[in-house]
Amino acid sequence: MNGDDDPDACIVARVFLSRVIEPGDEIGGRWLREFGLGEVVLRLRERGEALPGVSAARWAGLVARAARAVPGRDLEVARHAGVRFVCPGDGEWPAQLDDLGDARPIGLWVRGRPSLRMWALRSVAVVGARACTEYGAHMAADLAAGLAERGWVVVSGGAYGVDGAAHRGALGAGGATVAVLACGVDRPYPRGHTELITRIAEQGLVVGELPPGDHPTPSRFILRNRVIAALTRGTVVVEAAYRSGSLVTARAAQRLGRFTMGVPGPATSALSAGVHELLRGDAVLVTDPAEVVELVGDIGELAPARRGPVLPRDLLEPAARRVLAALPGHRVAAPREIARGAQTTQDEVIARLYELRALGYVERHGDGWKLTRQAMISVRGGPGPR
Amino acid sequence: MNGDDDPDACIVARVFLSRVIEPGDEIGGRWLREFGLGEVVLRLRERGEALPGVSAARWAGLVARAARAVPGRDLEVARHAGVRFVCPGDGEWPAQLDDLGDARPIGLWVRGRPSLRMWALRSVAVVGARACTEYGAHMAADLAAGLAERGWVVVSGGAYGVDGAAHRGALGAGGATVAVLACGVDRPYPRGHTELITRIAEQGLVVGELPPGDHPTPSRFILRNRVIAALTRGTVVVEAAYRSGSLVTARAAQRLGRFTMGVPGPATSALSAGVHELLRGDAVLVTDPAEVVELVGDIGELAPARRGPVLPRDLLEPAARRVLAALPGHRVAAPREIARGAQTTQDEVIARLYELRALGYVERHGDGWKLTRQAMISVRGGPGPR
Repeated sequence: MNGDDDPDACIVARVFLSRVIEPGDEIGGRWLREFGLGEVVLRLRERGEALPGVSAARWAGLVARAARAVPGRDLEVARHAGVRFVCPGDGEWPAQLDDLGDARPIGLWVRGRPSLRMWALRSVAVVGARACTEYGAHMAADLAAGLAERGWVVVSGGAYGVDGAAHRGALGAGGATVAVLACGVDRPYPRGHTELITRIAEQGLVVGELPPGDHPTPSRFILRNRVIAALTRGTVVVEAAYRSGSLVTARAAQRLGRFTMGVPGPATSALSAGVHELLRGDAVLVTDPAEVVELVGDIGELAPARRGPVLPRDLLEPAARRVLAALPGHRVAAPREIARGAQTTQDEVIARLYELRALGYVERHGDGWKLTRQAMISVRGGPGPR
Repeated sequence: MNGDDDPDACIVARVFLSRVIEPGDEIGGRWLREFGLGEVVLRLRERGEALPGVSAARWAGLVARAARAVPGRDLEVARHAGVRFVCPGDGEWPAQLDDLGDARPIGLWVRGRPSLRMWALRSVAVVGARACTEYGAHMAADLAAGLAERGWVVVSGGAYGVDGAAHRGALGAGGATVAVLACGVDRPYPRGHTELITRIAEQGLVVGELPPGDHPTPSRFILRNRVIAALTRGTVVVEAAYRSGSLVTARAAQRLGRFTMGVPGPATSALSAGVHELLRGDAVLVTDPAEVVELVGDIGELAPARRGPVLPRDLLEPAARRVLAALPGHRVAAPREIARGAQTTQDEVIARLYELRALGYVERHGDGWKLTRQAMISVRGGPGPR
């Protein structure tokens, strides 16, 4: 289990570390950068010389955790729960997480069909207060539905309140949504969202840094937020009191150079006070999905001339190619019709459509999907499976 | 009535022109700048050669208006109504109106005790929708009261809705407020605000560009807004729909380099849509009086070292000196107590206190007033009437 060369060994090493090092631990990140994966694993496993930057007691604690880690079993449990492990070097790893530097996740546990990397390409975070008002829930659902209808993936934290409303809004619009949890992804939290999180795993993605069965803690909630911020092009805060965790996400987004947006509310509402504080800084006020897309689509969109597919058709995954082949030539088709053509399920079709959207092959029109002009040109002009 | 030399003739000439030239008419402003007051009056009165930039028909219309103008009678009517005429060159003329360039008012008709020039020095406009919501009225009153309590003068348009709430908020806090009307100041508009506007004239100032008896028109409302913007250090828009007149005030403030602020509201409220549009631009989001003062007090405040009185005590008007002399040495006093000491009315005391505040002599603490530290030092150190 050296892990620096062999990709499989690398995965096992990172699964092991995800049991030992807490999410967002920058000292651990520095060890990986300075000593390499193999050496860090070796020292922890073999009770070797302490790595720098931690007290003897802390090192002993890590070594004790290492002694209990059984990565093979974690991978086995995950596999049974339909969970995969995605880490740096993997084709599904979202490169933008590297912006977190030493706080980059060791790896992510992922539940759901779509490619996390593809989906994250055109994604926006919609976050906010757990104890939100009706207004906050309405705005979150409305923004998420509108983003989904415009082909954007809605990322949130799976919590009560704004997060839940955002996920539901995206799902309700037949859209794409990702829940980033602060616990093992096989262990929905909060319990009251078990059904919602299960639905997200079926229709979208549930991801998290923590290994199967691990539980959330206050610091894990806070550190989870940096993943939401880093994964997405921008973060919209819908309602947040002063000192709310959502502001942590927004500030992380700002530090990472992502767009930070806020939905205004009454100046008399304590649940908008945190948002207004953001808006008095560099965050941009948004009131509808079009304003969000106007902002995040801006530098994010490829230049007009290059808006077509960025990945040649024959490099697409077979499942994505099948969905692409099932799209009619010049008209909009509903996911149900495409699913019939591709002989698969609607959830599978939606997963692939948002991937193809991120790659410039398709666009969403109302409830249906259509090949982009550039995709049609590339069908006629270039090579491809059709 | 040449008006270029003799101050009294100058006043009569400008009173005459305020009957002939519409508020904000930049062509008229250019005439004054290029030809001089006397020449413009002469040509209009004597049906002389048309001045440049207007059609023959328009010139004929102006000449016809000129023939009906009787400035002496206007001044007489005004005097009877307790209205004075303040124009460039006058000691009460607020110099910041000169920022309007050729759209600078010909002069202002003023009702009320205080010095318009002094009061305007530390003033903020609070404007917004006539058909505002309860929330809008609440915020306007709350901001105005808070500004008044911090020694700031609240300027607005005297209209229903936000304007009225702002004036009432300031008056209710024993504060200073100025209504800028789009009609003759002897002719309160809207009629339903007769009582309010009368109260403002007693406790504060009612000003306007139009001569006695003149009525408002849609374009006069719009052009009145530039005076509100120019007079104040900044404009706060409380509620405004798209294309609201308050946005005209805000944009004028922006063009004039004044601070532009907006109070957020629910993204679902049509009456906040115009404000949110402003806030997506350069306007600053504000939710309470402290945030307004933080902004407008910033460059506006004199540097700390010079925060004391800017006008030597013996150059103060006698009425202001009497009020200053009635303030106790080291403690806060209520306007009622100061009025007893100065042997005058409470309204008169409030008028002078806000002037003295603008000059750095006094500061407001809760419902009372106190000499500033710098004023006390200048009492001990320098010459003065005490």
